[in-house]
Amino acid sequence: ITEVLSPDDVDKTAEVADILQIGARNMFNYKLLQKVGKTDKVVLLKRSFSATIAEFLNCAEYILKEGNKKVILCERGIRSFDAEFTRNTLDLSAVAVLKKESHLPVFVDPSHGTGRRDLVTPMSKAAIAAGADGLMIEVHPRPEEALSDGFQSLTLEMFVRFMEEIKPIGKVMNKKL
Amino acid sequence: ITEVLSPDDVDKTAEVADILQIGARNMFNYKLLQKVGKTDKVVLLKRSFSATIAEFLNCAEYILKEGNKKVILCERGIRSFDAEFTRNTLDLSAVAVLKKESHLPVFVDPSHGTGRRDLVTPMSKAAIAAGADGLMIEVHPRPEEALSDGFQSLTLEMFVRFMEEIKPIGKVMNKKL
Amino acid sequence: ITEVLSPDDVDKTAEVADILQIGARNMFNYKLLQKVGKTDKVVLLKRSFSATIAEFLNCAEYILKEGNKKVILCERGIRSFDAEFTRNTLDLSAVAVLKKESHLPVFVDPSHGTGRRDLVTPMSKAAIAAGADGLMIEVHPRPEEALSDGFQSLTLEMFVRFMEEIKPIGKVMNKKL
Amino acid sequence: ITEVLSPDDVDKTAEVADILQIGARNMFNYKLLQKVGKTDKVVLLKRSFSATIAEFLNCAEYILKEGNKKVILCERGIRSFDAEFTRNTLDLSAVAVLKKESHLPVFVDPSHGTGRRDLVTPMSKAAIAAGADGLMIEVHPRPEEALSDGFQSLTLEMFVRFMEEIKPIGKVMNKKL
Repeated sequence: ITEVLSPDDVDKTAEVADILQIGARNMFNYKLLQKVGKTDKVVLLKRSFSATIAEFLNCAEYILKEGNKKVILCERGIRSFDAEFTRNTLDLSAVAVLKKESHLPVFVDPSHGTGRRDLVTPMSKAAIAAGADGLMIEVHPRPEEALSDGFQSLTLEMFVRFMEEIKPIGKVMNKKL
Repeated sequence: ITEVLSPDDVDKTAEVADILQIGARNMFNYKLLQKVGKTDKVVLLKRSFSATIAEFLNCAEYILKEGNKKVILCERGIRSFDAEFTRNTLDLSAVAVLKKESHLPVFVDPSHGTGRRDLVTPMSKAAIAAGADGLMIEVHPRPEEALSDGFQSLTLEMFVRFMEEIKPIGKVMNKKL
Repeated sequence: ITEVLSPDDVDKTAEVADILQIGARNMFNYKLLQKVGKTDKVVLLKRSFSATIAEFLNCAEYILKEGNKKVILCERGIRSFDAEFTRNTLDLSAVAVLKKESHLPVFVDPSHGTGRRDLVTPMSKAAIAAGADGLMIEVHPRPEEALSDGFQSLTLEMFVRFMEEIKPIGKVMNKKL
Repeated sequence: ITEVLSPDDVDKTAEVADILQIGARNMFNYKLLQKVGKTDKVVLLKRSFSATIAEFLNCAEYILKEGNKKVILCERGIRSFDAEFTRNTLDLSAVAVLKKESHLPVFVDPSHGTGRRDLVTPMSKAAIAAGADGLMIEVHPRPEEALSDGFQSLTLEMFVRFMEEIKPIGKVMNKKL
């Protein structure tokens, strides 16, 4: 999984990556959406932190229209008036709405969505319970040395424990882990 | 459970109600908070749709300071830039944060939080998974005749089915139903 | 001008104050609105920091309906996603909208609206140019000793200079100073 | 003035246009910012409807760092919880802040900022009074036939009247028209 930032990068990235990620800041980059829509790679489209659900679906449509049907929608937190305890506000009702409005798989990124390592487990459980089809979790062998976002990354040990903790919810919701 | 709107109403309401509810629009009504803080009734404090988590906790403190320790915090949706598919944005990361920052029980109201009957079940599951201690669900024998909020109320039949559906998540999270 | 916090306070405050102020946190306090609506005092109704324009007008209606027609609307900043440089976002297009939707006088409070002393002059000029009928400016003889909000208060010397600076805009907009 | 949507378009657009515009949805398109930073054309950078002031300045920095110092900042409305009367919330305190934090010229686009033709004049006056160095006004000979945004465009007759109306404020603020 590799992020593409510009239409120019799409071809060479598609040669090596299995999944092309469009970051939240590029969700409205229509030229980029059209370009990845012409590849046959899975595209993970992250919701802009200020996109309405309608805009999010509309941007997915830009990709689908070019022929690429392998699009994954990813909620990663929206901007709200309160950023004191969490960096963003993870919008899990968007997950439930997207599952009703679209046939596309819906992922959730609780690492960026909250910006806090200690909230990754409860919000992952909540995401699965809300109907999410997948999770994106930041893991780093030594988060304190990470170039960015270290405070929201799990260590490998934490990740093993995390997997144990979410398993029962996944089972109840009939999700494979 | 009865909502109190004004300090004047507290005494007579406390005589008949088991739980005094402070509505979202009254969360910042400090005189009312102080008055219910002097009773021995359970107080359900709903978060204002634009209150930060810090302000929410601070308003709970107004009640606790008067001696009444029986306060329940209730998340019921915040106001965001997107109100097309859901009336409010249910802030479930607030639930996870409140469980860390406070010892008070945390409830979630997915009926007001989403304004949509069909989202009550997925968001209730998500709320429990995020750590909520209780739920407030609007039920009406004939929602289409309700004076207000009918479109977000469950019928009695729906409520029975709802209870069946959330049971497995409740079990996993060790919650009594 | 004195703020009233509770229906109980209205009568005794009305005896001594010329103007009754309803603070932003009490804008949705319907009992209080009805009570001041029964007095013959001017009521300055401040917009809640998260009220829509429609809600603001509706709350003014609660007062008018009781017979008191002397209502002043006051914009004092709304809550947005950015609170780094200014405490709130002063919503001056609300001023222009309110002048179209209502016959009531519209005031602006740039002191609370920005939370910064150095923005009071430019935002006051802008408010007048947008059509505001009046301004509320915080002035304190020694802001550094103020119990609250000192950093947004003007000193007396600053206030004299402020009046000089806004005079030309007031003249162009045909406002008396 | 022509909008550029992609790094690929920059060279050929720079041949014919005097000003390169970066639209709000492309404000975070870092590759595009770097590309226009390498031209010698004036760049008009519109603020994303959800960018903080810090992010807006940071994106301008991407252009400046490449050597192009001819950057104009343009406020065009932010997304807030209220979109009933105006499409966006025109953030004029941002204008006053940008004038303090940066040496770059600051423009305001009240047409997109409000989405309403009848608010263009009061908000233009307010923008100038807040310190704006320029305005972007949508004008269309026959707005009812415009492909988009017709309801916010002025006709040529309206534009002539508009210029007359803002002249006195411009004079007071020492702006050339």
